[in-house]
Amino acid sequence: MGTMGFIGLRYMGRFGVCPSRFGSLTLGSRGIPRRAVSALVFRAHGDPAEVLRLEELELPALGETEVKVRMLAAPINPADINMVQGSYAILPSLPAVGGNEGVAEVEEVGAKVDRLKRGDWVVPSDLGSGTWRTVAVCAETSLQRIPNRLPLAMAATLSVNPCTALRMLHDFIPLNPGDFLIQNGANSGVGQSVIQIAASMGVKTINIVRKRPELEALIAQLKALGADHVFTEEDLRKPALNDVFKDAEPRLALNCVGGKATVDMLRHLVNGGTMVTYGGMSRKPVTVPTSALIFRNLNIRGFWVTQWKKDNAHDPSRFDAMLEELAALCRTGRLVSPALSEYPLKDYREALDNAMQPYSSRKQLLVM
Amino acid sequence: MGTMGFIGLRYMGRFGVCPSRFGSLTLGSRGIPRRAVSALVFRAHGDPAEVLRLEELELPALGETEVKVRMLAAPINPADINMVQGSYAILPSLPAVGGNEGVAEVEEVGAKVDRLKRGDWVVPSDLGSGTWRTVAVCAETSLQRIPNRLPLAMAATLSVNPCTALRMLHDFIPLNPGDFLIQNGANSGVGQSVIQIAASMGVKTINIVRKRPELEALIAQLKALGADHVFTEEDLRKPALNDVFKDAEPRLALNCVGGKATVDMLRHLVNGGTMVTYGGMSRKPVTVPTSALIFRNLNIRGFWVTQWKKDNAHDPSRFDAMLEELAALCRTGRLVSPALSEYPLKDYREALDNAMQPYSSRKQLLVM
Repeated sequence: MGTMGFIGLRYMGRFGVCPSRFGSLTLGSRGIPRRAVSALVFRAHGDPAEVLRLEELELPALGETEVKVRMLAAPINPADINMVQGSYAILPSLPAVGGNEGVAEVEEVGAKVDRLKRGDWVVPSDLGSGTWRTVAVCAETSLQRIPNRLPLAMAATLSVNPCTALRMLHDFIPLNPGDFLIQNGANSGVGQSVIQIAASMGVKTINIVRKRPELEALIAQLKALGADHVFTEEDLRKPALNDVFKDAEPRLALNCVGGKATVDMLRHLVNGGTMVTYGGMSRKPVTVPTSALIFRNLNIRGFWVTQWKKDNAHDPSRFDAMLEELAALCRTGRLVSPALSEYPLKDYREALDNAMQPYSSRKQLLVM
Repeated sequence: MGTMGFIGLRYMGRFGVCPSRFGSLTLGSRGIPRRAVSALVFRAHGDPAEVLRLEELELPALGETEVKVRMLAAPINPADINMVQGSYAILPSLPAVGGNEGVAEVEEVGAKVDRLKRGDWVVPSDLGSGTWRTVAVCAETSLQRIPNRLPLAMAATLSVNPCTALRMLHDFIPLNPGDFLIQNGANSGVGQSVIQIAASMGVKTINIVRKRPELEALIAQLKALGADHVFTEEDLRKPALNDVFKDAEPRLALNCVGGKATVDMLRHLVNGGTMVTYGGMSRKPVTVPTSALIFRNLNIRGFWVTQWKKDNAHDPSRFDAMLEELAALCRTGRLVSPALSEYPLKDYREALDNAMQPYSSRKQLLVM
């Protein structure tokens, strides 16, 4: 998840397909439907505008270890679109419900559910949950409680991008106040979270964006979030910029682009520095000069928040601690959600259309 | 050092130039020469056959903290050639004496030298030493003692390639008996050391070489050293090979090639595995699919034994321990030097010519 862009399928063989979760998708009639569910279903991969349809599904009976939830809001992330198109590395079995992130309220719990109760706010803890729907029945273990005094838009978008940003800032190199990091795709959902969380840590950010219409407005927006420097990819190749980096050599680089823009970013990383790749918007691979590995001892890593969640599934307290840390930043105004446009579920076509526009720094949110 | 191939100069700005060491190169007449030194000098970068000349130099007086050594033997490594050509990332100031590795015997020590004594065998501890000469005066701190009951050829070639191999096997991931690693350029000096040291640890090796004349003889040679599997780059792309990797997923990959061959090797690395780059024979960069970083959590690193030596210069006991570990493997026959051709210093042209032949698995050794 996160700002993936279009990941090649070359390495898919090692993953296979994830089951459609967050309540089973029972499309046939199986006994008497207890309640109708509206959901954005795709029965084939392709252009989201063509393959996604709003359908009425039936809701399965609530099992002993299951929870019935009402979706409150769910964003449209780039990875969601790639998953519908069939270009994401992890694909659900079809038919499937779209969407992988969102916030829901617990309406009813099975007899053996003990960690969740009616009224709790929850987010899915894995991919393939199908959040673009009104109601779901799902395993207690597939849900993670989230502090429910957050603004709805924040709660709906907290568990992927801000979690990705937080983990990349905490888990790769120790960052101290005054240290610098550099990131590309700085206006992405993750990028905006990185700027704000880094600022809360006293870590300074050098932010790279693509040249675009209304660049000045974007620069002002990112600086308002706490960005120390904002440059375009073209700026990064100008010798004049070397002065900036003389006293601000970044120790960490965060990459969601790939290709030439990433090579240019690597050039400014301190010897011994680490670059973490979490997306590939350019659809180009990460190319590292041999000399940068040998003589500059760069460390090239990757991060996928879904894997972090899987690896920590045995200890939900780690997930709790992460969400609580982010919620605390939200409550004190140090972390705000990206600019959002809200749409009722029935207006999903317009929302998808806007989500697929280039240079968009706004996130589209479906509100159920 | 090691099997570098031709490293681009793009990242050179961060290193600058290393001084000519291992005795100063005094080309003018400064007082009465105490003794003549024969040395292979280059006064400009270019084709080694053209720019290298055997010259008589004068030897400076021995300082209090200096040591006078007589060179016994020095190899011609790919990095030495690149340094003469001017294509290596670290270049000496000119004029300079060629050669960076070799074994010497201590003949005389200054009044304040306490770590070395007459008769000790020593190797240079940094680049730019200029080992292609008969005699040198150099700082005690620029020398490292080496066990002197080793065969001469082994002693002369122990401090770069076998040290590179040993460190890459020890310092990146824990390797247990039965684990697999994969390496390309497996017939290089480092590659042959990796095979032998890994075998002594019970670690199995999958070795990739380029298709070449007399491939069968090379495969037999590497298997005799302890290689478990030897494949060509073309073999690596055949689906049939997937069966081999089913029970032998390598956790570590060692790369001295770059380009397509390296992408092919990465495909076989286990999820979460590490690739260490120590050379770039293809002159192409290391290209990593974005998905391999994100979804397979590969870790892309680099290693340069010269940097390891610099980083550990404050504690010569670490260098001692490394050389002792290698010497022990030599004494028990578990580590042998690569096939060598020996030349007197005056026949350096023939030695250089042979060192620059493609597909050579023999090392050329100048014996003084």
